[in-house]
Amino acid sequence: MNIAYLNGSYMPAEEIRISPDDRGFLFADGVYEVVRWYQGNFFDMEGHTARLKRSLGELRLEWVGADTFPVISEELIRKNDLEDTPALIYIQVTRGAAPRSHAFPAVQTDPTVYAFARGFDPDPGKYVAGINILMKKDIRWSRCDIKSVSLLPNILCFQEAVETGNSECAFVRDGYITECSHSNIFFLINGILFTHPESENILSGISRRKVINLALKAGLQVNEVAVAEKDIDKVDEAFLTNTSAEVAPVISINKKKIGNGRPGEVTMQLRAMFAAETAILRNHKQTH
Amino acid sequence: MNIAYLNGSYMPAEEIRISPDDRGFLFADGVYEVVRWYQGNFFDMEGHTARLKRSLGELRLEWVGADTFPVISEELIRKNDLEDTPALIYIQVTRGAAPRSHAFPAVQTDPTVYAFARGFDPDPGKYVAGINILMKKDIRWSRCDIKSVSLLPNILCFQEAVETGNSECAFVRDGYITECSHSNIFFLINGILFTHPESENILSGISRRKVINLALKAGLQVNEVAVAEKDIDKVDEAFLTNTSAEVAPVISINKKKIGNGRPGEVTMQLRAMFAAETAILRNHKQTH
Repeated sequence: MNIAYLNGSYMPAEEIRISPDDRGFLFADGVYEVVRWYQGNFFDMEGHTARLKRSLGELRLEWVGADTFPVISEELIRKNDLEDTPALIYIQVTRGAAPRSHAFPAVQTDPTVYAFARGFDPDPGKYVAGINILMKKDIRWSRCDIKSVSLLPNILCFQEAVETGNSECAFVRDGYITECSHSNIFFLINGILFTHPESENILSGISRRKVINLALKAGLQVNEVAVAEKDIDKVDEAFLTNTSAEVAPVISINKKKIGNGRPGEVTMQLRAMFAAETAILRNHKQTH
Repeated sequence: MNIAYLNGSYMPAEEIRISPDDRGFLFADGVYEVVRWYQGNFFDMEGHTARLKRSLGELRLEWVGADTFPVISEELIRKNDLEDTPALIYIQVTRGAAPRSHAFPAVQTDPTVYAFARGFDPDPGKYVAGINILMKKDIRWSRCDIKSVSLLPNILCFQEAVETGNSECAFVRDGYITECSHSNIFFLINGILFTHPESENILSGISRRKVINLALKAGLQVNEVAVAEKDIDKVDEAFLTNTSAEVAPVISINKKKIGNGRPGEVTMQLRAMFAAETAILRNHKQTH
């Protein structure tokens, strides 16, 4: 039986219900995080907690328990017997339930905090073969740095990607490639690694930051500079980063081959370096 | 006791609960409508139903019962004894509950359909005095023509307006005034009425369309052409339109007076014409 979390209580997931007047449901007035469990430790729980708090702050959404996110996450792993399984924790915090009105509730409402754990299959085969992605106009809002649940544009574009034989959708804003529906994107051009700089147009990915550090450690030059859509022909390698996939080689964009159409060498080196880091997390199990 | 509607059933509002895995809650994957009840009839229920169906179509969200929206609305008015009260119906349709994944659920899920009725005070005094509005950059997504619940930018900007002594927030995109957080906006310049044309940057307001028709009937020239932010000094009158306020005179934008700082003559004429139309709705009560 899956145990999930709602507002301080752990209970069977199927028993959890929320009010339809929750502002998360009526207005997408909420934020979320996804953190990965590596059979013994979370990946950069500190980074995820800091980002959650930043997102809450940008929405002026107060959850006094934000620092308990790591504890809730561990409890969910334990209660669901996921200690020895690759798993993800999802947490969402909204401004709570109140009679529908665009303005924040006049009387301070308690936030709604919902979290669940789930085991998952990282499917390394998929990433060794490389993935195809779609690229289209970035139709999202201007504050993509906030990890909000206002995700309708992301899911519509992702769905279009899936239906056209792709695994992700990359976005182009004002001629420059920003990121993907739920990953950051990197390009290797003439031996230099490029990725969009931190700004209001991208989410500051935890895996993105990690990969930048790994690349620097490997002696690569990393330019946090956006790549123009028109320069896509110059790209030798491309890859995505996110919490569940880590580093995912991209072998085509809009059906056009990247490089030789196979996962790039530098990409696979960075993927291996990432795996080496997470192996350490697995090998240093916490005592519960 | 307030009676609301969920998925085919009418029940006490406080008993209604939804799954936290509803895609409306996780992804803002849903649409909504608000329609006004004029003590006997709804205002352009046909127009609201058509727009709801269009929004559903744009999200490829199937609700086979979309044509029953008018019936549900009437039932809610009746069950809540609102026949003789100014009231609003709110309806929201989402893609339903499914394990969290950006892609549409592999197995077709039933949509979640939630609706409620509520009496309200139209507060005509407020609109006779005129309202102040804030104007700022349009940070919303590029498909504002879809009446979706992905409303986080709208509520953040509206809240800022309220906290700075304003009643609404108008948006500027690429130098042009588009609309407001939950209203359309009109400007009178040299006797000609201007409002942003229908496009992906604005919601096609039911009240907006009505006011355009009333203005034409009154012999006004109406240009569905966007007004540039830099031309705001040329504006003689300004007003908002939406379902609950009908026509709301704007007397200042960003603390700068519009015209003489009082509701404009043409504005009040259009407001009176709108009121005359709704008086007809009130006087032709349906037999229940």
